[in-house]
Amino acid sequence: MTLEVGILGYRFMGKAHANALARLPMFFPEAPDVERSVLIGRDESALADAADRLGFDSTATDWEAVVDDVDVFYNLGPNHLHAEPAIAALEAGTPVFCEKPLAPTLEDATRMADAAADADVPAGCAFNYRFVPAIRYAKRLLEAGELGEIRQVRGRYLQDWLVDPDAPWSWRNDAELAGSGALGDLGSHTVDLLRFLVGSDELAGEIERVSGHLQTFVDERPLENSDETRAVTVDDAYSAQLAFENGAMGTLEGTRFATGHKNDHSIEIHGSKGSLRFSLERLNELEVLRADDRGYQTILVTDEDDPYVDHWWPPGHVLGWEHTFVHENYEFLSAVADGDSFEPSFADGLAAQRVLSAVEESDDRGEWITLE
Amino acid sequence: MTLEVGILGYRFMGKAHANALARLPMFFPEAPDVERSVLIGRDESALADAADRLGFDSTATDWEAVVDDVDVFYNLGPNHLHAEPAIAALEAGTPVFCEKPLAPTLEDATRMADAAADADVPAGCAFNYRFVPAIRYAKRLLEAGELGEIRQVRGRYLQDWLVDPDAPWSWRNDAELAGSGALGDLGSHTVDLLRFLVGSDELAGEIERVSGHLQTFVDERPLENSDETRAVTVDDAYSAQLAFENGAMGTLEGTRFATGHKNDHSIEIHGSKGSLRFSLERLNELEVLRADDRGYQTILVTDEDDPYVDHWWPPGHVLGWEHTFVHENYEFLSAVADGDSFEPSFADGLAAQRVLSAVEESDDRGEWITLE
Amino acid sequence: MTLEVGILGYRFMGKAHANALARLPMFFPEAPDVERSVLIGRDESALADAADRLGFDSTATDWEAVVDDVDVFYNLGPNHLHAEPAIAALEAGTPVFCEKPLAPTLEDATRMADAAADADVPAGCAFNYRFVPAIRYAKRLLEAGELGEIRQVRGRYLQDWLVDPDAPWSWRNDAELAGSGALGDLGSHTVDLLRFLVGSDELAGEIERVSGHLQTFVDERPLENSDETRAVTVDDAYSAQLAFENGAMGTLEGTRFATGHKNDHSIEIHGSKGSLRFSLERLNELEVLRADDRGYQTILVTDEDDPYVDHWWPPGHVLGWEHTFVHENYEFLSAVADGDSFEPSFADGLAAQRVLSAVEESDDRGEWITLE
Amino acid sequence: MTLEVGILGYRFMGKAHANALARLPMFFPEAPDVERSVLIGRDESALADAADRLGFDSTATDWEAVVDDVDVFYNLGPNHLHAEPAIAALEAGTPVFCEKPLAPTLEDATRMADAAADADVPAGCAFNYRFVPAIRYAKRLLEAGELGEIRQVRGRYLQDWLVDPDAPWSWRNDAELAGSGALGDLGSHTVDLLRFLVGSDELAGEIERVSGHLQTFVDERPLENSDETRAVTVDDAYSAQLAFENGAMGTLEGTRFATGHKNDHSIEIHGSKGSLRFSLERLNELEVLRADDRGYQTILVTDEDDPYVDHWWPPGHVLGWEHTFVHENYEFLSAVADGDSFEPSFADGLAAQRVLSAVEESDDRGEWITLE
Repeated sequence: MTLEVGILGYRFMGKAHANALARLPMFFPEAPDVERSVLIGRDESALADAADRLGFDSTATDWEAVVDDVDVFYNLGPNHLHAEPAIAALEAGTPVFCEKPLAPTLEDATRMADAAADADVPAGCAFNYRFVPAIRYAKRLLEAGELGEIRQVRGRYLQDWLVDPDAPWSWRNDAELAGSGALGDLGSHTVDLLRFLVGSDELAGEIERVSGHLQTFVDERPLENSDETRAVTVDDAYSAQLAFENGAMGTLEGTRFATGHKNDHSIEIHGSKGSLRFSLERLNELEVLRADDRGYQTILVTDEDDPYVDHWWPPGHVLGWEHTFVHENYEFLSAVADGDSFEPSFADGLAAQRVLSAVEESDDRGEWITLE
Repeated sequence: MTLEVGILGYRFMGKAHANALARLPMFFPEAPDVERSVLIGRDESALADAADRLGFDSTATDWEAVVDDVDVFYNLGPNHLHAEPAIAALEAGTPVFCEKPLAPTLEDATRMADAAADADVPAGCAFNYRFVPAIRYAKRLLEAGELGEIRQVRGRYLQDWLVDPDAPWSWRNDAELAGSGALGDLGSHTVDLLRFLVGSDELAGEIERVSGHLQTFVDERPLENSDETRAVTVDDAYSAQLAFENGAMGTLEGTRFATGHKNDHSIEIHGSKGSLRFSLERLNELEVLRADDRGYQTILVTDEDDPYVDHWWPPGHVLGWEHTFVHENYEFLSAVADGDSFEPSFADGLAAQRVLSAVEESDDRGEWITLE
Repeated sequence: MTLEVGILGYRFMGKAHANALARLPMFFPEAPDVERSVLIGRDESALADAADRLGFDSTATDWEAVVDDVDVFYNLGPNHLHAEPAIAALEAGTPVFCEKPLAPTLEDATRMADAAADADVPAGCAFNYRFVPAIRYAKRLLEAGELGEIRQVRGRYLQDWLVDPDAPWSWRNDAELAGSGALGDLGSHTVDLLRFLVGSDELAGEIERVSGHLQTFVDERPLENSDETRAVTVDDAYSAQLAFENGAMGTLEGTRFATGHKNDHSIEIHGSKGSLRFSLERLNELEVLRADDRGYQTILVTDEDDPYVDHWWPPGHVLGWEHTFVHENYEFLSAVADGDSFEPSFADGLAAQRVLSAVEESDDRGEWITLE
Repeated sequence: MTLEVGILGYRFMGKAHANALARLPMFFPEAPDVERSVLIGRDESALADAADRLGFDSTATDWEAVVDDVDVFYNLGPNHLHAEPAIAALEAGTPVFCEKPLAPTLEDATRMADAAADADVPAGCAFNYRFVPAIRYAKRLLEAGELGEIRQVRGRYLQDWLVDPDAPWSWRNDAELAGSGALGDLGSHTVDLLRFLVGSDELAGEIERVSGHLQTFVDERPLENSDETRAVTVDDAYSAQLAFENGAMGTLEGTRFATGHKNDHSIEIHGSKGSLRFSLERLNELEVLRADDRGYQTILVTDEDDPYVDHWWPPGHVLGWEHTFVHENYEFLSAVADGDSFEPSFADGLAAQRVLSAVEESDDRGEWITLE
């Protein structure tokens, strides 16, 4: 059986997933066969070019016609276009893989998660950083109790592409289209990663209370190729404090104003027996300090028995950012083919959204917010 | 003229300051002459031993007799003993150098700052990290505008000496004696360092609003050499979010539960033109990213024209933690001798205290607190 | 026009190049079209599996039949099989891409370079590390004179897969089959990289004299799945000292016994105006110190205008080891299609071989050897 | 009993040792009492100033009158003044502490070691880096067999104070006065450190054969405050390859031309079970990889039970370069007081000299040199 995949969105994320699909046969031969069947977009000419480049059989400008035709539907469009197509696909019994954040609003995210709960097929939220080998390896350590009780966590996602006040306005600066700024775009990754790593009952449990802080440093930006400016209606940066169910505490940060940092997503965890650190810009490495260690070990997570590594190259032949997409596509499509469940699911996407929404509400009201 | 110095406290801080005084003549010959005159404490035998070792001429068990006899009074005792002797000395016209945090309560700190304001002599709060060469060098860069407008700051002080639940109870775990836990002990350093670096009107300005989070992970601890336990009534860790006067945002953390971290005090600053990072465990280094840089430069701040360095050794011959005390004693005693003012002053100590107190109040009330 | 490629060798290097060819259309659309036409090997069943997995149209067990049939011939077999097929292909006018080291002996390498000189088609030696974006960026800096006169260089390639004396014997431990051990396998990369970076007349010039040191730590190893052992007849590690034409000096090391190092290939260069450092295990980074810098900048070489990066992902989305193969295949195939020359050529392969051969001779004779 | 110490030399090393002597009572109360008795030099006015600053009771311009008057004689003068005063002191039964390298020539060093062998008192060569806590800790690990059989070592000492061709000529550039350049000044430290760490019979054993390379990049330099230049007759940089008694191999480098490196003395060791790394610019840290580790641990060697640390400050309160002098003075003076032997001795100084001399001879003759 070959799975026919329809994909909405052909820019950054479209390319990342198309590449992942193309690489599966050579490196994950046990993955289901996949056909890049339909590429969906609005600008016909750009779409045709992209379909050609990305190896799609056909194109469509209307997602409605596609979502129940294909075997799998990927929604990689802008945030405000996540809900309707995803829900339609799920209602048609088509498995859905949706980019993060799940939706621009908590309401949309809830509707999507409800649709997923009612459907009989996998609905995945594409938090790709769960699929970094070093992160999977960290999870192994955490689940084996190597760090003991979780006391403190720290998550930061630092970028700098808006430092320049003349950097052009885009949909990512607009509350209607994006929902929020750094909070949703970057924070959703960080929240999901922390939930993945320490969110189980045996570790920190879920995030229970949050205090948030949002800030917009540059209030309006020029439109590209235009004399006009448009208002920035989302946050440029956010921070948050977290209280977890089982007593751990944490801090979060996400920003597009960290001068000099390009894509620096880092996680730090302190437990009663050990600590660990990870940074996306050195994604092949994990720093781990365990009970009998006196300092962090800098571990190159490229050994044969490290997660996913046996599919690739010998020890020390490092992987890149894009490999996380191959891994998540492999897992998602395998779940589809085998009728298994898949995580991160829409429920995970919603859970992250709830935290982000509480951060926003906290900033608004100037008080800690308890999640239900 | 030789300044006769009386010092209350002969343990860790007593040793650090006595050493600093002893080293001045060889390395800072322009410093005023100083006599380690009287060492003050309660346990006569331990005191005599310490006076002998630390080079004091005499001892006293009663500070009241000393504070107006000596030319300078150092208060290095536990926090709850800061206020009375310091105020008495100032009222007697004796310059005072007091360890941080200034006091266990905002009330005490206010009384001390008031006494200092009424006095005609320097009253210094011994925030020694202002005197790290790399920190002074950072301040030079900041004041020269090299980082542009300050957008985000981050301060963390990570220790791990209480991770073990059987680590013995001490006065530092008691609210009466210490005021607070990690918050006052570690947080006072971090708040002062950030105020020093970015607190001027031209940069971030003062901290205006805070949200705080305090946590105690281990509720009681064994008394040393005893079967009994005593309650821990202070925080083991704190975090905070900051809003500065001029629009910058920040996060703070201090903890005695960061497994594997011994004395890891770090500061990170992002401005519109550049960024910098500093960590106390590598105190000879400063990481700086400037307008035309593509990555952080790791600068070894040991060149001849770096702050204080010409007093010591050639480039690359690194300094240690204790040198910060030599620098601060040099500056404080020079101010005393010359009748100059000294910073960090009691007013700075109080300013830090106000922030910490607001963090505590915020944690208590579950809402952001605006500093007056 | 579509180039039909025949490839000898289907293990590690076969997979690396097949993957590179497969990825060109999506990321380098301007590359010539390529068909993975014939895969050549001896073990028919393993070969058939590999051809299927790696996307080849057909297989062959006899290279002679293939080398003038295809448009391009890749020789990725063991070192002792490099010369004959490569020479035959060149004599048939077929462009050849050959894995490094060019040959197990200087004689073979010379014959191959002679054949390449007589041929009218590109003959490339696949030193893939020339195609790391950070290395290309380093070359830009060097050629622009940013480091000034080159004074000292350092190259090290550290692996640890033979530390265990029970690690099984392979052809790589045999002088007949491999030529040499760490020297040829690792040293050829290091010598080529240094020649690429500083070998021009304006910089250090060619390597003129060498002193070498070879060592075998474990003299025999078990055959896999057998009670027998076989002699190790190559070096486990080598070191060398270099004198360059223009007065620079250097040191080299390569080893399979650097406990804990997997694939740690590093280069360090000191010039009269600056210095730089690179390590393959962090291949997205380059450390650079320039005239006005006080410390090394850690540069993430993933900006849009960095070499090859515009073909991939946004800044900070790091690449992996395998991307170097995509870049070198792109360059080599473009040269083939356009009738251009390609570097590193067989002449470069021979030049590296001459240095390695002199290192071996120096070790043998206990004296410095001058290269002609 | 108080030891009266006479010291020849009052510049950099004079200050370093005077400071060390001054700090012993407070931090090493069990050290013998010491009086800074006589400071010896030629320039009476500079000498008087230095004696005043460094706390000496008196001065002398003639060492001959001093060496049998004092209880201990320190020779901290330029290299060509090491032999005569040291030998005279030893002949007079006065313990001698001499700065490194022991002498500018092998002949002098041999005479000094002979005199030490004939004397009944300690004769120490002041290789201070043996007294870095992290180095002592490394030695503990090595002696406990934690790294297994030693396979490869690497030592580098990188400085850059001569990169500028206009940096003024000094005695350190003159073969008569200094013996050699980077080789003796820097290389003596590196050779001694490697001998200290791995030189025992159970580990690598002594260095048996060497190949050397010396280079002078700038042939003449201006005299300070003058229009004249003077010839540089020593090496600006050296490298060497080493073969140890028990089969290990090594490389050495020392240079005054490593742009951007101030005092970067680093050691790396690979054994059959583990590896370690140390760099002087981060002298509180040791990187260690042991049998069950997957990466290097970065250990902050400041715990209470780490070598010498209990004399100083709590964990994480880092030491500086100068503390190594306190430790070595403590050990040397204790040996003097107790009639014990002291290492590094003049024999160790001679052993290092033999290696350096062989490196020079190897460079001269273009061949490997076997040490007798």
